[in-house]
Amino acid sequence: MKAMDLGAACNGETRESAAGAAAHPKAARTTKRRSVASRLIGRLLDAYGGPPVRVVLWSGEEVAASERPPLATVRLRDRRVLLELLWDPDLAFGDAYSEGRIEVEGDLARFLESVFCSARAGRRRGLPWPGLPRLSWLADPIEEARRNIHHHYDVGNDFYRLWLDERLVYTCAYFPDPAAGLEQAQLAKMDHVCRKLALRPGEEVVEAGCGWGSLALHMAERYGVRVRAYNLSSAQIVHAREEARRRGLEAQVSFVEDDYRNITGRYDAFVSVGMLEHVGRDQYAALGRVIARALKPEGRGLLHSIGRARPQRMNRWLVRRIFPGAYIPSLKEMMDVFEPENLAVLDVENLRLHYARTLEHWLERLERAAARIRAAYDERLVRAYRLYLASSIAAFRTGSCHLYQIVFSRAGNDRIPWTRAHVYGAD
Amino acid sequence: MKAMDLGAACNGETRESAAGAAAHPKAARTTKRRSVASRLIGRLLDAYGGPPVRVVLWSGEEVAASERPPLATVRLRDRRVLLELLWDPDLAFGDAYSEGRIEVEGDLARFLESVFCSARAGRRRGLPWPGLPRLSWLADPIEEARRNIHHHYDVGNDFYRLWLDERLVYTCAYFPDPAAGLEQAQLAKMDHVCRKLALRPGEEVVEAGCGWGSLALHMAERYGVRVRAYNLSSAQIVHAREEARRRGLEAQVSFVEDDYRNITGRYDAFVSVGMLEHVGRDQYAALGRVIARALKPEGRGLLHSIGRARPQRMNRWLVRRIFPGAYIPSLKEMMDVFEPENLAVLDVENLRLHYARTLEHWLERLERAAARIRAAYDERLVRAYRLYLASSIAAFRTGSCHLYQIVFSRAGNDRIPWTRAHVYGAD
Repeated sequence: MKAMDLGAACNGETRESAAGAAAHPKAARTTKRRSVASRLIGRLLDAYGGPPVRVVLWSGEEVAASERPPLATVRLRDRRVLLELLWDPDLAFGDAYSEGRIEVEGDLARFLESVFCSARAGRRRGLPWPGLPRLSWLADPIEEARRNIHHHYDVGNDFYRLWLDERLVYTCAYFPDPAAGLEQAQLAKMDHVCRKLALRPGEEVVEAGCGWGSLALHMAERYGVRVRAYNLSSAQIVHAREEARRRGLEAQVSFVEDDYRNITGRYDAFVSVGMLEHVGRDQYAALGRVIARALKPEGRGLLHSIGRARPQRMNRWLVRRIFPGAYIPSLKEMMDVFEPENLAVLDVENLRLHYARTLEHWLERLERAAARIRAAYDERLVRAYRLYLASSIAAFRTGSCHLYQIVFSRAGNDRIPWTRAHVYGAD
Repeated sequence: MKAMDLGAACNGETRESAAGAAAHPKAARTTKRRSVASRLIGRLLDAYGGPPVRVVLWSGEEVAASERPPLATVRLRDRRVLLELLWDPDLAFGDAYSEGRIEVEGDLARFLESVFCSARAGRRRGLPWPGLPRLSWLADPIEEARRNIHHHYDVGNDFYRLWLDERLVYTCAYFPDPAAGLEQAQLAKMDHVCRKLALRPGEEVVEAGCGWGSLALHMAERYGVRVRAYNLSSAQIVHAREEARRRGLEAQVSFVEDDYRNITGRYDAFVSVGMLEHVGRDQYAALGRVIARALKPEGRGLLHSIGRARPQRMNRWLVRRIFPGAYIPSLKEMMDVFEPENLAVLDVENLRLHYARTLEHWLERLERAAARIRAAYDERLVRAYRLYLASSIAAFRTGSCHLYQIVFSRAGNDRIPWTRAHVYGAD
């Protein structure tokens, strides 16, 4: 998964800063005589801890929640937006922003960052009205997964081509140096994964959730392994198969349009980059069983996923409009994949800052391609993806989201690398 | 903590091998007409999955539980040992071995390794009689911790000097190469920890559970930091202070004879090597609060602890006779230190095979010093520590125990190393 969290609280700040925000909870200021609308906006801003933002209503009336200089100006087009925000802030903000009924003047990512940070104190006080009940679905898990994946990844390969790197790698990159380019960093990420897995020529690898096939093809081409790669997105599978043909890798790599739960065979390595976020909390044990069944006794595995420092709810807009069925687990929750099957974690690396950097590249490219996306699709898609990428940048910058690469094997497997020096070319 | 697990099941084997052991559950064979005693031994061996071992009773009668050639011969001196084994196998084996009422001919570590591996299948079937209830204590946690630490670490510095390295480092070493010597590997471990913490000269470091002070002194001497190191063992503190004086580090390192829960001040780095095993499951949240209180906003921390691939009970003999109050958590359980405080895990490394190697060095030195230990203390101490070290080797070799080094910081701390290349001198 490539998404992140919108509207979640800032985790990263010190107790001081949270206490600082809490110190002026009633700091809502108006510039004129206060209307009911402005008072309600004031309460909403207070509930989010009083971020440094100026809100301009449809009437021209202004509200500020903080005495700090505003980082951004938020314009609400009409009274309906206000009512929607009061009813369900997360969902309403995303929808109204996408539809252009909310405008943000200033750096969107920095604005969201400041909201996430101030929200920590705000959440403690709670919203002044009750939240909506969480929705849940009862359905066949594989059918549901198919629908969810189709929703996001089958928007069209052409759309993603406009703002991803040339290999269409839609997961956190690895920047050997923060100034590295995106193409180079995605290549470095694939090599980082392959080195961690200590792939040997001739080995058999299974990949769960292979995107447009870039990693599967890279592993085959550069590391001489045979790969069987699973994915539910037909648009992605079509592209991946074309690429395999073009690069003469058809004999080495097979792409299977199926759910990870239907993986068959036994492999030297299991790899999954950016799929766990789509797996759903109640299916972690099932994923663990699939891995345990698929791994040879001396096999290694790698799971790459967005994670949390502690369990947090998902943003409703993100789950409804961008990633249906998505859930971002804490590291403790992720252990439910491994522990029931006696799979031992060998290595965990947190690449949080690398994901913030990756997203900055994506957002920059999205902005450059905005006119073309608008022409081929519509303005709403540009705005929705702008909000999703900017809020994701904010989530990774503030430590609301993290990126974990987890290497594992059966608990008693002695054929594991002696140290990690080989990953850094230092052995 | 330096201990491991005795009598736990082998986790590392494939399902095949466990199934293989389960395939001949009733394989107990006798060489002569079977006495009641030999039948009971047969049932006990069956319950442990039929390890390849030959048991010789006080009468000379022999029992074998497996058709595989025996790895060791176990001699029981009298009927009382048998009754004790039937009543409480873990505790009785340890005690009777320490007292010389059980003899093992053959490689003790290899023998225990085979028992741990076969026990996995055996445990599924369960013992043919009920286990004892678990004991628990209700007491002041700090007083209890003091007693527990005194029990193990105050046996006497001279005793540990006979079989540890010259710096008295009583935790898992880091062998850059498996053939490295123990002195070199303990030095490399301390540097590995310091590099992971990215220590800068002039920083303030707090250490929880500092043993004989080797790491605290090393950090001060080689990395130019100031250290405040806590420990409950007075024998260890006395030695550590002497060393600080001898090396002219009194101004830079202070050793405090107190519990980690009484840590005061704020630090750039928190480090704890081999203490978590003594902390007790119900105190993880308290440890997390201490860390959150002690860390500056941009501080880093490292926790080094024995762990499990999944929760497992402790061996009763080990907890009663060697490490009172000890508990070895799974990685999921360890997360209870971090998640409630919004501390983010940055890096986890599993050094399981390094601990097996460390223990092999310790056992070899213990055997070389056996005559001197026997003269200064008694035979029972030699045998108890031989069993503890050999069973620990088996536990790490089979994957029943792991060693985790966990690096962490506050979730939103951006002043963390960009990659891990600096740990490997590759940046």
